[in-house]
Amino acid sequence: MSKRTSSRSAAAGKSKAAPELRLFSLPGIPEIQTGDDLVRIIADAVRRAFIRFENGDVLVIAQKIVSKAEGALVDLASVAPSPQALALAEQLKKDPRAVEVVLQQSRRIVRTDHVLITETHHGFVCANAGVDHSNVPGDDIVTLLPKNPDRSAKKLATAFRKRTGKRVAVIISDTFGRPWRLGLTNVAIGAAGVPVLLDLRGTPDRHGKLLNATILAVADELAAAAGLLMDKSKGSPVVLIRGYRYKPVSDPAARIIRPAAEDLFR
Amino acid sequence: MSKRTSSRSAAAGKSKAAPELRLFSLPGIPEIQTGDDLVRIIADAVRRAFIRFENGDVLVIAQKIVSKAEGALVDLASVAPSPQALALAEQLKKDPRAVEVVLQQSRRIVRTDHVLITETHHGFVCANAGVDHSNVPGDDIVTLLPKNPDRSAKKLATAFRKRTGKRVAVIISDTFGRPWRLGLTNVAIGAAGVPVLLDLRGTPDRHGKLLNATILAVADELAAAAGLLMDKSKGSPVVLIRGYRYKPVSDPAARIIRPAAEDLFR
Repeated sequence: MSKRTSSRSAAAGKSKAAPELRLFSLPGIPEIQTGDDLVRIIADAVRRAFIRFENGDVLVIAQKIVSKAEGALVDLASVAPSPQALALAEQLKKDPRAVEVVLQQSRRIVRTDHVLITETHHGFVCANAGVDHSNVPGDDIVTLLPKNPDRSAKKLATAFRKRTGKRVAVIISDTFGRPWRLGLTNVAIGAAGVPVLLDLRGTPDRHGKLLNATILAVADELAAAAGLLMDKSKGSPVVLIRGYRYKPVSDPAARIIRPAAEDLFR
Repeated sequence: MSKRTSSRSAAAGKSKAAPELRLFSLPGIPEIQTGDDLVRIIADAVRRAFIRFENGDVLVIAQKIVSKAEGALVDLASVAPSPQALALAEQLKKDPRAVEVVLQQSRRIVRTDHVLITETHHGFVCANAGVDHSNVPGDDIVTLLPKNPDRSAKKLATAFRKRTGKRVAVIISDTFGRPWRLGLTNVAIGAAGVPVLLDLRGTPDRHGKLLNATILAVADELAAAAGLLMDKSKGSPVVLIRGYRYKPVSDPAARIIRPAAEDLFR
């Protein structure tokens, strides 16, 4: 028995164990190349970590490796910046070719002070449209967000089911900033097999009063939890979450995007 | 050995276990009253869950019970709404006395379309300044945010240390909305003993390139992780997180608040 489980599991046999979540980092994921079979690679990492998949497990996978496997990469050497990209790059002291890629990935510029915040074609509002050059080999290669992260998540979940026989939910995560709080947090940009929003409206609180406006973005909380074990400098882009209780529905992460009509900060 | 640990811990003895987080919900926390000793109550709940505190454990405590213990409550029967509160209440179809309390808790109104979003005296931008009437007995009682959540967290962490002999970090959490994403997520409004922002700038990625602008709001991710086990309708306002590796610094959650000068969405 591992040291970390002993203080509780020794007693757990005779107790009614309280709800418990466990999160496992999966080490040893190699550098991902276009065309790689992520399902085989992740299943191998799970096996090496001495874990067996169980129904209800949630795999949180960093966007970066999904993008690489899908070939969502651009070589900046092939990019000709537009006049708008050149002007923005000058203002922001950035590589005009990278700015051009950001603009191509965006349907709307949200802010250009200090950082380039745009709305992507998916509808995500984030810095640089998710275009990133960290954890990519080569100086001129950037990654894009997956074209359709919900579809990517669904494909992965289906393949995990087929390979393992278990119902495994998949969340594709990325780190986004927030306007009023510093620092990035991991959020769900793709999901399959797990509710993304949990609507508690109409359920009574412990005093029988109806809860007011409580919809929880649980897919974002799952992504954030996994983020605690995803150290970008060490390369652990996959986390397995066990013990989260949910109804196995297929709920796209696109549902989390606030519709334009409800956006008070346009 | 509990069923939930068997598939992994059977092998863990001979494996180099991968980094792992465990989150325990602490059931049986009673209705909290003004003046209650939260440390004794939580320590009792930990014991009943057959858990022993370990150095490095992080307790995430829902704001609501801290506010109740501190007496941060207002009886709406005692509130006389100002003309501004009356006008806003009419516009928003809300109780003018509750709106008055929100205004008193705020230093700035941010938005008044559909919801009342303000900046609290602490600097938090959130709906209704954190004033809430759910999970409070009585129809006319509302809770306020703790006056100084970082001080509350520090007091609790010090008392846990004294009571248990262990270094236990404390995060006080609340659920906040986000402008571009639907649903609430748990964030840290108070913290003691754990870094709130993890600055990875200047650390190399796995290819040796320096990570660009990566500061992670880890206290918010800890709060979000705990939120997955805090079911507001069932009353489990305390979650213990074990296995998170961090430097034990005292870092106030107020640091997460984006300074006004850097706020692009004023």
